[in-house]
Amino acid sequence: MPRYKLTIEYDGSFFCGFQRQDNGLGVQGLIESSVFKMTGEVVTLVGAGRTDAGVHALGQVIHFDLTKEFAPFKLQEGLNHFMRDQGCVILSCERSVDDFHSRFSATARSYEYKIINRTAPSALYAKRAWHVRRPLNVEKMEEAALHFVGYHDFQAFRCAECNSKSTLKTIEHCFVEQKDSFISIYVKSKSFLHNQVRIMVGTLVEIGLEKHDPIWIKDLLVGRDRTKAGATAPAYGLYFLSADYIA
Amino acid sequence: MPRYKLTIEYDGSFFCGFQRQDNGLGVQGLIESSVFKMTGEVVTLVGAGRTDAGVHALGQVIHFDLTKEFAPFKLQEGLNHFMRDQGCVILSCERSVDDFHSRFSATARSYEYKIINRTAPSALYAKRAWHVRRPLNVEKMEEAALHFVGYHDFQAFRCAECNSKSTLKTIEHCFVEQKDSFISIYVKSKSFLHNQVRIMVGTLVEIGLEKHDPIWIKDLLVGRDRTKAGATAPAYGLYFLSADYIA
Repeated sequence: MPRYKLTIEYDGSFFCGFQRQDNGLGVQGLIESSVFKMTGEVVTLVGAGRTDAGVHALGQVIHFDLTKEFAPFKLQEGLNHFMRDQGCVILSCERSVDDFHSRFSATARSYEYKIINRTAPSALYAKRAWHVRRPLNVEKMEEAALHFVGYHDFQAFRCAECNSKSTLKTIEHCFVEQKDSFISIYVKSKSFLHNQVRIMVGTLVEIGLEKHDPIWIKDLLVGRDRTKAGATAPAYGLYFLSADYIA
Repeated sequence: MPRYKLTIEYDGSFFCGFQRQDNGLGVQGLIESSVFKMTGEVVTLVGAGRTDAGVHALGQVIHFDLTKEFAPFKLQEGLNHFMRDQGCVILSCERSVDDFHSRFSATARSYEYKIINRTAPSALYAKRAWHVRRPLNVEKMEEAALHFVGYHDFQAFRCAECNSKSTLKTIEHCFVEQKDSFISIYVKSKSFLHNQVRIMVGTLVEIGLEKHDPIWIKDLLVGRDRTKAGATAPAYGLYFLSADYIA
């Protein structure tokens, strides 16, 4: 059966998360029903990352199989027609090799977390960035972010519902960029624990508020205690940027 | 009576335009009713630019008078409380001199127009940028934009409903910037005719699509015929950036 690899963008405020939900629309459900409308085929798609409700994506990657051959560009255009104004768009579509797997073949995932740091909230970024009112010390956040890079035990940075067997992860990069009132935190790793990026961000913000020194990150990694780390940052500041694959 | 100058941000998709409307909410109406909720005073506010339905603002300027004195920061915080999650935010508030006038004292207005130029639409910029599918020649648009700069008759670049007596305007700058699929057109002038920026953008896009050469702008300015210029670009790509005042 022909396999298709698609890159997609979505506005997380439209969805109850990536996965099919009983109590609301998931990104997966919208695309699967659009595939059915267009091709008459029932597919189960797989995504590189199962983002939570409210999380956005600029380059999520999915794959699914169809029994019929479709010209990739026609598939993209047709799906975008059926999903029009519903918060999700197919950015690109290609025929992949049969053993390509959006989740298991991915060698890395990249995220961005957007913070707006000023007294006034933002009208245009209301559900697109975390509004932190008190001034953040970005230099301290930058210093702290470097402590995340490398191979560490992230037990202190996962939520109670996370059921991964191993909490050992290698962070390829973690850095902070500021432009005017906007602060972005970029994180890349082969994979992440549930809520890991949002807890890392919540913790970096505590350091930005000067409640802790940057070295605190090291203590948290060694201490392995979720209750000691920062709060989970809101979902709507998080953007799934891209997934990497070999060749 | 104390006069207050406020800078505001709004998401145009929430409003029927800047001005009070019979058939829907204007930015003006939302702020005036919030001022009443907070202070008990009925005000009529004035804005630097009366943006159309769908147009966004990152730095619109307004003023109004109150009989009572308020600490500007408390006024800002109170209004933001009453307007929470309604698409409009007060970015700053100050006591102004008594003869300050957001509209008549303004020495310039600056706008940005955002275009997303790629085959696929955008989920996150669905009502925040004009989606132009066919590739635009940005170099030609840049060359054409320069023909707008300076003192010209903009009769060809105003809508039928515009009732300005004079169509002579001086464009301080008009230039194009590209970053990946995003193209921004920046325009600054003391004042604009109704729909002027959107018709200028629609015309630049015709040149980007290579239907006309950049020099066409000169012909249109001299010809003074609205029917010859490009279509009016959609409102939702337009952002009111700022208004300038002396001192």
